Amino acid sequence: MNYFSSDFKLGILGGGQLGKMLLYETRKYDIYTCVMDPAEDAPCRIACNEFLTGDLMDFDAVYEFGKKVDVLTFEIENVNVAALDKLEKEGIKVYPSPATLKTIQNKAKQKLFYVDHEISTAPFTRFAYTSEIGTALKNESIRFPFVWKSAQFGYDGRGVKVIRTHSDLEGLPNVECITEEMIPFKNELAVIVARNSKGEVATYPVVEMEFHPTANQVEYVICPARIDAAVAEKARHIALRVSEAYRHVGLLAVEMFQTQNDNILVNEVAPRPHNSGHYSIEASYTNQFEQHLRAILGLPLGNTDSKVGGIMVNLTGEEGYTGKVNYQNIEDIMKMDGVTPHIYGKKETRPFRKMGHVTIVNKDIAKAREIAEKVKNTIKVVS
Amino acid sequence: MNYFSSDFKLGILGGGQLGKMLLYETRKYDIYTCVMDPAEDAPCRIACNEFLTGDLMDFDAVYEFGKKVDVLTFEIENVNVAALDKLEKEGIKVYPSPATLKTIQNKAKQKLFYVDHEISTAPFTRFAYTSEIGTALKNESIRFPFVWKSAQFGYDGRGVKVIRTHSDLEGLPNVECITEEMIPFKNELAVIVARNSKGEVATYPVVEMEFHPTANQVEYVICPARIDAAVAEKARHIALRVSEAYRHVGLLAVEMFQTQNDNILVNEVAPRPHNSGHYSIEASYTNQFEQHLRAILGLPLGNTDSKVGGIMVNLTGEEGYTGKVNYQNIEDIMKMDGVTPHIYGKKETRPFRKMGHVTIVNKDIAKAREIAEKVKNTIKVVS
Repeated sequence: MNYFSSDFKLGILGGGQLGKMLLYETRKYDIYTCVMDPAEDAPCRIACNEFLTGDLMDFDAVYEFGKKVDVLTFEIENVNVAALDKLEKEGIKVYPSPATLKTIQNKAKQKLFYVDHEISTAPFTRFAYTSEIGTALKNESIRFPFVWKSAQFGYDGRGVKVIRTHSDLEGLPNVECITEEMIPFKNELAVIVARNSKGEVATYPVVEMEFHPTANQVEYVICPARIDAAVAEKARHIALRVSEAYRHVGLLAVEMFQTQNDNILVNEVAPRPHNSGHYSIEASYTNQFEQHLRAILGLPLGNTDSKVGGIMVNLTGEEGYTGKVNYQNIEDIMKMDGVTPHIYGKKETRPFRKMGHVTIVNKDIAKAREIAEKVKNTIKVVS
Repeated sequence: MNYFSSDFKLGILGGGQLGKMLLYETRKYDIYTCVMDPAEDAPCRIACNEFLTGDLMDFDAVYEFGKKVDVLTFEIENVNVAALDKLEKEGIKVYPSPATLKTIQNKAKQKLFYVDHEISTAPFTRFAYTSEIGTALKNESIRFPFVWKSAQFGYDGRGVKVIRTHSDLEGLPNVECITEEMIPFKNELAVIVARNSKGEVATYPVVEMEFHPTANQVEYVICPARIDAAVAEKARHIALRVSEAYRHVGLLAVEMFQTQNDNILVNEVAPRPHNSGHYSIEASYTNQFEQHLRAILGLPLGNTDSKVGGIMVNLTGEEGYTGKVNYQNIEDIMKMDGVTPHIYGKKETRPFRKMGHVTIVNKDIAKAREIAEKVKNTIKVVS
């Protein structure tokens, strides 16, 4: 197939920020793109060749859209899988495959998948309904504290809660869920694995999530992670095993815990470009969006090494501000060495809303970390 | 002015490849963009917020377009300057300014400008008409060989011819022109200077054009240039002097000759992102398109240093092929380390038509040069 001609059409389900960054890369290769999203004013609208509005959970909408394209991918996991199944059977290339997506979409299934494939993961219990957790606590088959996770629709941190007492369980939806032992981890790590449709595989360097010293919140995503080479090697090896188990095509972001004993536990995966890989736009020889494209088109994978150290800071709405967004002090951070803001173009800010990200690159990662802290203390997303 | 909101509009005259690469950067900052180009299917069409078709040489079209925006820039020099003049007088920020553009658009004026500002340039003679050259030859005020350049519309190599004998003069248009002494240069160099609307200035490293050993054609643009540090320092210094003389806002690409005695002669300038700066997309901390944007918006300039060595190879249509384009062996070059093709999306190839470019990056510039040669010998633009 000649991708570099208008005979070929790439379809993307979801027209948000990740899709937008993927679309920049399609422009570089002049690949013809069609995007479907429910929102009329989705960020992707002005970067694709054809834009359709449509409900991503609606069978007919997804199926009709998929029939128009040669390769179909998505930037969000909440899509109608039955439609993807039918499209795949009818010869459309769907990457990642519906089979991969089905396992990932359900967190209980995903955890069982790791057990089946002898991939270490935090101990957990599966429940058909949240209401069954009380009995398990009474039986002492599980103990406080633990993490409650909804099996479905867990995308992007929604549907996750730390439970320390009975009262924390109140108000949770009564749905299929898992409870997971809390891991007193040394580091939270991630490795992005690229796998193309011909089976070629490449891993990105290990990144580290640095948490705020008191608030339980990721402040910096740092590449390379400041960990022992042996631990990094182990993390990449395990990410590769996860990738082999899924036999996905495209990117797979593997989130992991480094335990106090330097064991690696797989937390969860995302089968697409991921927040933990945004640093790659400025720091890597091949950024994650270009790599996803290379992978799903069956093109040779690019070099995953970094040119320079990279740190990403998420830009989220400040507490106490709602309304028309204002990026306070953005010019001050643009004066700093190796700093690139990425503004997602949402018109309104809300507390904690993800409004963009900032990348800081430097040959010296310690220096980058210093500048990242200055960035974090300078720019404010207010109204 | 808050650029990072939809209240602000950036206008771009010309919707070609340079504009397209500039538009990618506007997406990063979520800047609202309007583009005008005569071609319905201009490459910029799918990357801007508003697209208008219009003749860039037409006063009314340019004026009406300019009135809609807050800052106006262009990706091509052949635009109606009278309209820009009027827009500037009415308070629209036009960068580069009409005054800068007027000097640059006419090659005779541009050469006189260097003389007036005591900037070394190749000796030349100005003629009101090409037909007057014969008399000058008879008088021996000029001698063969020399370079004939049309004063107007000299953009991108058109309107330039090496003249060795009387017969070479035949068929040239009878227009305002200059004749220039041929410089037996050691190297052809270029330096991109960024200057923002607040007067902040930054120079990029010196790049070198490596010519084909026999054909008189640039094969590789190499950054950093493989020249003495003292010569590089001198070239950057002279580029700065040129920039100060023009007092331009935005980028200024300064093309120069390094003579046998290591003198630097200014050849010509382009007041915009330039082919000699394409390497910066992959190699620089701040690529030239982002830098142009920072400059014309009065934002702080970014770091112009390189993360890694960079080489650019132009992708031009092979001789003997006309028709629907095919990028032969593109997958083979994508396997090579640090290689990024940029496909411009022109549907038809013609001999020597500029169809794209390829960037090769590597920490070791000698290694990059080896890979660049492999790239050049592998990919072919055919039909």
